[in-house]
Amino acid sequence: MPEGAPAQVADDGLSTRERRLRPALVVNTGEGKGKTTAAMGLALRAWHQGWSIGVFQFVKSGKWLSGEQVALEALGAEHRRTGAGGEVEWFATGAGRRWVRKPDAEPDQSTAAREAWAEVKDRLAAQRHTLYVLDEFTYPLTWGWIEVADVVATLRDRPGTQHVVVTGRGAPAELIGIATTVTHMTKMKHPFDTGQKGQAGIEW
Amino acid sequence: MPEGAPAQVADDGLSTRERRLRPALVVNTGEGKGKTTAAMGLALRAWHQGWSIGVFQFVKSGKWLSGEQVALEALGAEHRRTGAGGEVEWFATGAGRRWVRKPDAEPDQSTAAREAWAEVKDRLAAQRHTLYVLDEFTYPLTWGWIEVADVVATLRDRPGTQHVVVTGRGAPAELIGIATTVTHMTKMKHPFDTGQKGQAGIEW
Repeated sequence: MPEGAPAQVADDGLSTRERRLRPALVVNTGEGKGKTTAAMGLALRAWHQGWSIGVFQFVKSGKWLSGEQVALEALGAEHRRTGAGGEVEWFATGAGRRWVRKPDAEPDQSTAAREAWAEVKDRLAAQRHTLYVLDEFTYPLTWGWIEVADVVATLRDRPGTQHVVVTGRGAPAELIGIATTVTHMTKMKHPFDTGQKGQAGIEW
Repeated sequence: MPEGAPAQVADDGLSTRERRLRPALVVNTGEGKGKTTAAMGLALRAWHQGWSIGVFQFVKSGKWLSGEQVALEALGAEHRRTGAGGEVEWFATGAGRRWVRKPDAEPDQSTAAREAWAEVKDRLAAQRHTLYVLDEFTYPLTWGWIEVADVVATLRDRPGTQHVVVTGRGAPAELIGIATTVTHMTKMKHPFDTGQKGQAGIEW
């Protein structure tokens, strides 16, 4: 669809070019499907731009690697092999997963989430990536493991051009307040409601 | 999140395994962002499962290749090179794009959309792919270029295990009626509303 034309021009003192290049803070929230997959689809666009991508999964663990992790890491390998696209770094918590600060330990979920956030903060300060995917990041906020005020200040004041995507149900109002794009994935039909279980290729 | 447990068990005469493997018909609709990107994120999961993926873009054209096309076609090339993941076939209409039936012609949009749908029907009948992404497919339905009744009958009666994802605003009620999963991407904030224009890596 031709969706590129602005309905109005903002009175924000920015040039069109500045506004156009304003770093995005995208929040995908709501109880419906598509929050994580939409973030991963954005990562495909970022990869094509040659951007460095950091993906931080704050909650998911499970027995299997997710399809999005394997596929995006394959694109990261393609970048290293041929120079196409951008680099991809993936940080996942949970059993059997590589974790950045304590590769041999199995920290509990709340510790892992706090360490992941500390890592994100370090990387934002260093302008390490152009796109950050903070997958299921709303849950450690809701559970009180990570301070919302710290997250809001850090993301609001992040330097340079660094785009951030946050996914998860129940995004805090303060986070929505500083976001550039917020989509509520509203469930109209969900297969689990009729007794269907998750299936490979669809849910992971 | 642990979202895999069904809230109830359906009284549909199917075994758990049959229900679990029931082919998905996913509809991503609504005016918010994330409809296409969520479909592309699902394609990453499908790729990891080794599924054959067919992507049909019914409307988008523009000057640039989309990031999702380049990235998913890179994954398709990786499959051909190493055997990893699944195959990816991409069909896009519009200027400068490969089109399947008339590679040298530049058909008008409505003709191209009808030919794309004819191609999808042929492939569904032949069980050619395991995942079909029908991107922005709601628009030719809304515009009357393709009959909704034909689409509903074709998708409802498709043979075998073929998953289908449809994206676009204003999905017809009859399509929602036969879908297994429907998400309404509800716009809470959209950058275009404040005069921001689309930017590479975020909008394409």
